[in-house]
Amino acid sequence: MPQALYFFVVICVYKFNYMRKTIAIDMDGVLADVETQFLNWYERDFGIKMTKDQIAGLTEDTAFPEKGAIRKFAHTAGFFLTLPVMEGAVEAIATLSKKFEIYIVSAAMEFPLSLPEKLEWLKVNFPAISWKNIIFCGDKSIINTDYMIDDHLKNLDNFKGKTIMFHAFHNVSYTHHTRANNWKEVIDLMAKEN
Amino acid sequence: MPQALYFFVVICVYKFNYMRKTIAIDMDGVLADVETQFLNWYERDFGIKMTKDQIAGLTEDTAFPEKGAIRKFAHTAGFFLTLPVMEGAVEAIATLSKKFEIYIVSAAMEFPLSLPEKLEWLKVNFPAISWKNIIFCGDKSIINTDYMIDDHLKNLDNFKGKTIMFHAFHNVSYTHHTRANNWKEVIDLMAKEN
Repeated sequence: MPQALYFFVVICVYKFNYMRKTIAIDMDGVLADVETQFLNWYERDFGIKMTKDQIAGLTEDTAFPEKGAIRKFAHTAGFFLTLPVMEGAVEAIATLSKKFEIYIVSAAMEFPLSLPEKLEWLKVNFPAISWKNIIFCGDKSIINTDYMIDDHLKNLDNFKGKTIMFHAFHNVSYTHHTRANNWKEVIDLMAKEN
Repeated sequence: MPQALYFFVVICVYKFNYMRKTIAIDMDGVLADVETQFLNWYERDFGIKMTKDQIAGLTEDTAFPEKGAIRKFAHTAGFFLTLPVMEGAVEAIATLSKKFEIYIVSAAMEFPLSLPEKLEWLKVNFPAISWKNIIFCGDKSIINTDYMIDDHLKNLDNFKGKTIMFHAFHNVSYTHHTRANNWKEVIDLMAKEN
């Protein structure tokens, strides 16, 4: 009987660790509130205070009057390190981690300065996430998880599993992915998944 | 007829770019000759000249008399930036790129210092590889390509596609993956794949 119990425990541990469904979760615009940082930095550098309503529906290239502002911010040291955490993200990751295997998948390669900053940001704000579960990539086409939570269509459209499109100013016009307006809605959607 | 030709060209370009099979290629021990760097640095720091024959069949933990030497090197600034390129790797990547979509997939997250160094090393030694095709991860379990070329069993064993085990001192005892002793043998193996 103790032996049967042993095997039962082993199987449970195995199932818990290796059979859990996987989620690829994006950083910028999902875990990290880049939109707020863009608006704050734009006001700081160009003296123009813009609102979330003003940029809703625009692209990253056309959202601000100063062309290339967003790309310039993303290439500036400190930008990624100082991003505010998205509201509700810490609690949501803690909740999702109980049931799913979480992978943080960030398209960081375009901005080399962001690599150490993103790693440090995750360590500070999400210390429970292991380095084993962090992926920095270029495009996300070879990422194979059961779910993807992302704000960018270029990532969601090519993904083979189930998608959740996290609300962002640049994706408000699109409806071909399940939308979550905030982390509370992500939790509600994922509560239905097994 | 010109229209038919147009569609033919479009289909060919599409097939060439998007239907090509994908290969995940490891960095350390595959593109980069870490073994030579380990032996050189060991002699420099501990005054003992060891050979490739002496460490063949040993693990990374037991290969050198000084315990933890390899981990210490991997955590030292400059280690990854100064790695010699594996013999034949540059020509092999150029050859494979004609037929396959190449992704460089490195388990870099354990060594945070390595992130910018690995990116710079690739830029210097493999300038044709786009940032879009570079992935730095923790474990490689969610990487989904058709092939994987790697020296570590922990990566190859969990991979769902075809594997090629690149020769390394720590994998000489294992025979359950197709072995390539050098890049010439990789090219010969991949020439049979479509």
